[in-house]
Amino acid sequence: MIIDCHGHYTTAPKGLQAWRDAQLAALKSGAPASKGAIKISDDEIRESLENAQLKLQRERGTDVTIFSPRASAMAHHIGDATTSLHWSQHCNDLIHRVCGLYPANFVGVCQLPQTPADPLANCIAELERCVNELAFIGCNLNPDPSGGYWGAPPLTDRYWYKFYEKMVELDVPAMVHVSATCNPNFHTTGSHYINADTTAFMQFLTADLFKDFPALRFIIPHGGGAVPYHWGRYRGLAQDMKRPLLTDLIRDNIFFDTCVYHMPGIALLLKIVPVDNILFGSEMVGAVRGIDPETGQYFDDTRRYLDQAASLSDADKRKIFEGNARKVYPRLKRSLA
Amino acid sequence: MIIDCHGHYTTAPKGLQAWRDAQLAALKSGAPASKGAIKISDDEIRESLENAQLKLQRERGTDVTIFSPRASAMAHHIGDATTSLHWSQHCNDLIHRVCGLYPANFVGVCQLPQTPADPLANCIAELERCVNELAFIGCNLNPDPSGGYWGAPPLTDRYWYKFYEKMVELDVPAMVHVSATCNPNFHTTGSHYINADTTAFMQFLTADLFKDFPALRFIIPHGGGAVPYHWGRYRGLAQDMKRPLLTDLIRDNIFFDTCVYHMPGIALLLKIVPVDNILFGSEMVGAVRGIDPETGQYFDDTRRYLDQAASLSDADKRKIFEGNARKVYPRLKRSLA
Repeated sequence: MIIDCHGHYTTAPKGLQAWRDAQLAALKSGAPASKGAIKISDDEIRESLENAQLKLQRERGTDVTIFSPRASAMAHHIGDATTSLHWSQHCNDLIHRVCGLYPANFVGVCQLPQTPADPLANCIAELERCVNELAFIGCNLNPDPSGGYWGAPPLTDRYWYKFYEKMVELDVPAMVHVSATCNPNFHTTGSHYINADTTAFMQFLTADLFKDFPALRFIIPHGGGAVPYHWGRYRGLAQDMKRPLLTDLIRDNIFFDTCVYHMPGIALLLKIVPVDNILFGSEMVGAVRGIDPETGQYFDDTRRYLDQAASLSDADKRKIFEGNARKVYPRLKRSLA
Repeated sequence: MIIDCHGHYTTAPKGLQAWRDAQLAALKSGAPASKGAIKISDDEIRESLENAQLKLQRERGTDVTIFSPRASAMAHHIGDATTSLHWSQHCNDLIHRVCGLYPANFVGVCQLPQTPADPLANCIAELERCVNELAFIGCNLNPDPSGGYWGAPPLTDRYWYKFYEKMVELDVPAMVHVSATCNPNFHTTGSHYINADTTAFMQFLTADLFKDFPALRFIIPHGGGAVPYHWGRYRGLAQDMKRPLLTDLIRDNIFFDTCVYHMPGIALLLKIVPVDNILFGSEMVGAVRGIDPETGQYFDDTRRYLDQAASLSDADKRKIFEGNARKVYPRLKRSLA
């Protein structure tokens, strides 16, 4: 079985954006916030997936996608706590419908109703709702709800601890995933995403978060940002600061996906990061949608790179494709049963 | 000849920090800004280098370091334009003294008196002073003088154009280099530096800066941040956005140094980035000061990695060690004559 740990519903029917547009128009006009309803039929959902994620799953020979709302659209910097709550609940409910229509193909991961500098009570409640009522198996945690101005406390700050307690209680991991940036210095998928990955890793390296939460698990997407490429720098910094060895730091708590869109990058990832800490992911349909003229294949068809990696044993491949995902997302077992 | 394009005076005599401490104390107390004088003897300068940069040059068999003030100490976010101007001038004058004492070993690159959201007139004047009067050959340009809050316009914004005109007129390149971060989300050398590299590259990719300035040259340090590791992502994004091929984008304008502290990272850099766009650099004495227990050698002894790279021909090595630096820093010729 091949489990893709990183897929977003980037192809949602237009009714979703129509609702969001109306919400933002109301916000702008000062009208009272209203949750309302999303108008999307089951057929529209099927259509949005059949020629996109499902087609690509079939073509690429992958089985299940751990599926969450479109990351760039979370936009936690817009509006207030209610704006974010209504939007997140609708997005999550839509993912739930996807999983209901295609239970063999998708398992849900939720967007959190984060909002800059606001306590995390809404996030805790939404995580509980999604896990307990919608059978979701994880969440996407945004380390920068300000959208590129980095105003929230670091992920290792006690600000987040109540939320982490709930993650541990529910036994669900979080993918560290920022959203669109409203800072013109950054490009959402080109630099903000990658920077956030690198930033989170360095936060984890310099604090004792996993002493406080030995069972807390994070997936750092996009192959860990810049981390594997600069592994020597991070080993050296950790050593200079008398921090643990990186392999000890990450062992049970930090995992990287394989969203790296060329063979030399994937080869580096496989060479550097212990195989137990790598989860197959493609970010499909996502940041890069084209075909690589150098290979004639989709840039984000990351299964191909893994299949071409001569260094990988069959046992290692099974870990990356399936075993590690089952370990990091224990609730996956119920969904796949 | 081996030219190290990336060295900072991280070992400056304590008189420099004493002056800075006094400046910051005056700033805090509201006393009028005074440039005053730095009290450092030539012997103190010699001592600060003999057991550090010069010793390491000899041990590693490198010849000349393109040398600039300590990057993390630039701290453009502190104080106002006058604070930054006085501090930068002192730091640059000290580099000039270093180059005067050891003209065969060091060539100067200047810190700029940047300050958040302030026009660049001081930077233009200081660049002219350093190049014309102190024989400096380049500058370090900070894309984020806010120190981790990213409040300045992108490097491709017209805000910077007057400065670029002066760079082109003087025929000097800039290394894109941030300073210390005052945002607790970032670690200065572990994430802020690397993020800035990635951010700058993506800015260049999405704009037509080099159409406006065909002769403008930037060095993106730390091996280009995350860029070579995610080269497929950047190729794919460029293609989706109908932007030029990356090799065309960077050809005459963007160069990466070799400050990547492990062999697999260097191997990736060499495999991905055209050899004409790679400059030898070590960041010595800098971010990582320890010895790698896996090799028994200093993490930042990047010459070793290049010497071990079987893929490099002698001609390629000469480009990386010397030829490309002479091309990117044309004023180097005069200094080395």
